[in-house]
Amino acid sequence: MGEFELIQRFFTRPTPKAVLGVGDDCALLQTTDGMQLAISTDMLVAGRHFFPEVNPRSLGHKALAVNLSDLAACGARPLAFTLALSLPTADAAWCQAFSEGLLSLADTHGCELIGGDTTQGPLNICITVFGEVPVGAARRFGQPSTQAILRSGAQAGDDIYVSGTLGDARLALEALQGHIALPADILEFARQRLEQPTPRVALGLALRGIASAAADISDGLLGDLGHILERSGVGATLDTIPAIQLIAACAYPTWPAALFDKTFSTVTALQYVLSGGDDYELVFTAPVARRAAVQAASRDSATAVTRLGQIESTPGLRLIDAQGAPVANSFASFDHFAP
Amino acid sequence: MGEFELIQRFFTRPTPKAVLGVGDDCALLQTTDGMQLAISTDMLVAGRHFFPEVNPRSLGHKALAVNLSDLAACGARPLAFTLALSLPTADAAWCQAFSEGLLSLADTHGCELIGGDTTQGPLNICITVFGEVPVGAARRFGQPSTQAILRSGAQAGDDIYVSGTLGDARLALEALQGHIALPADILEFARQRLEQPTPRVALGLALRGIASAAADISDGLLGDLGHILERSGVGATLDTIPAIQLIAACAYPTWPAALFDKTFSTVTALQYVLSGGDDYELVFTAPVARRAAVQAASRDSATAVTRLGQIESTPGLRLIDAQGAPVANSFASFDHFAP
Repeated sequence: MGEFELIQRFFTRPTPKAVLGVGDDCALLQTTDGMQLAISTDMLVAGRHFFPEVNPRSLGHKALAVNLSDLAACGARPLAFTLALSLPTADAAWCQAFSEGLLSLADTHGCELIGGDTTQGPLNICITVFGEVPVGAARRFGQPSTQAILRSGAQAGDDIYVSGTLGDARLALEALQGHIALPADILEFARQRLEQPTPRVALGLALRGIASAAADISDGLLGDLGHILERSGVGATLDTIPAIQLIAACAYPTWPAALFDKTFSTVTALQYVLSGGDDYELVFTAPVARRAAVQAASRDSATAVTRLGQIESTPGLRLIDAQGAPVANSFASFDHFAP
Repeated sequence: MGEFELIQRFFTRPTPKAVLGVGDDCALLQTTDGMQLAISTDMLVAGRHFFPEVNPRSLGHKALAVNLSDLAACGARPLAFTLALSLPTADAAWCQAFSEGLLSLADTHGCELIGGDTTQGPLNICITVFGEVPVGAARRFGQPSTQAILRSGAQAGDDIYVSGTLGDARLALEALQGHIALPADILEFARQRLEQPTPRVALGLALRGIASAAADISDGLLGDLGHILERSGVGATLDTIPAIQLIAACAYPTWPAALFDKTFSTVTALQYVLSGGDDYELVFTAPVARRAAVQAASRDSATAVTRLGQIESTPGLRLIDAQGAPVANSFASFDHFAP
């Protein structure tokens, strides 16, 4: 199977939203009047972001999911994406499964594959995704004119929320690497969270006009919340007690309390939740006056949200326990080039 | 140097054209009224598209040039790009040189770096580029409504042209791989063409409204002209005599005729011109009635163009010699997964 047959068989589809899809030097896209384009790109490398032997269907899903998660964080509606793919060999069965996982998630979100590139080399997947957000007035001086939810909008006094659950992907990763042992069904549950994350697109859209700032959690909650704090010029205090309970696998029906203690302590659980990474949930802030609106957005998008703390004017990120006493923060965020 | 410092130091720049640049979950881009977005993505893999030890400044130039070449083929004006980069190590000197080559070409074309991704892994560069083209009426039933130059617009009777020169990149590649020996200055000349191609953006813009179809030549003239023929439902006859003369290195002042015969024959030269690849010139078609307009576009963009043949209604691609006799076509186009 040659390069062009591969593209034709697995990656060429009708693109009713785009002016022109796969097959020319460029794809053509036209935004609706009053809208602007939100663009994000993510590269997934074998052995770094996924095990080379991972199920290609899951990999296709995840490669698009991590990009849709960026659109979700901005409150953008998915429109289209391009796919650049470096493959060791043109393996038809692999491509078939990969494209099924990819395009099935794309269909769910009405996100059209409009172009790409295919080459031979070490397995590497680079997706660039396009979404639409309405043009808007700048909310503060010097800020962009957009209705997109940005990292820079958090204000002292705002509540801090996260969507869904955290730490399960890291739990699966540690088990798959042989660092901890998990019962089969719990591993399967956690593995599903690692390999097939659900981008929170509906929640992001529902939070437009409500959330003051948002980011998607890919490097760990503390790291990605840190980006919001830095770009907004604020600090925060985070309550570790609701945070610990965010690791869904620990609430899994067959997980006995004894196993929790034996497999990993609450300290480890907290570490996974706060800096596990690969969660693809949203961390966002909203004014206290909008609590009811946040709950409505959560309901309307069928996505759980948990309030975890408060934005403060004092810079820095502080953790507290049930008694309000400080918890030492030794939870490093993921850095691809950390020593 | 960590991931975020690397992005901050080398890849964060002002983006006056974009609503929002590097630093959030998404970049934000707004097209001008009456314009649509032309989008292209290209992935460059070490050992496949370039020698791993190549000068990083040249590599930065080339990574963007091959993408701008796709915009040129559509007659789109460069606007912005995203960069996803997989690096074995966070080498500051390498990143410095790479970003200089990349951003210097970007500045030449007013093309802003608006977002990206950085990860550790085998060296891989994936750029997605955005340009603007005016909305337009569909030129034929079932065709997209755009003023972009598409591969599908060639009509029987149209002239076929190429820009610049062809085959020099292949000549350099063969010499660098040790298959042929070249005098140092000719190698240097050809190597420049391989490592720092000039995207024909000005010519592409000048050809809007004149060219009936265009493609950029990355896999070889015959292969890329073949895409035009296929998508336009036509055939062509190509004159091999002006084609042979397109290999610029052979006209290089210090290249003696004797060396030409010894180093490679005219058959080899023709092979490099017709299917050498990595040329990043434009192949385009235009009605015979527009010959003066094509020459004016060539003059205005300071880019040589050569007329090489004619589009015909009979499918297939025929080569002829000076006497009009057929030349056997055994020139394969580049395919990443060819056996």
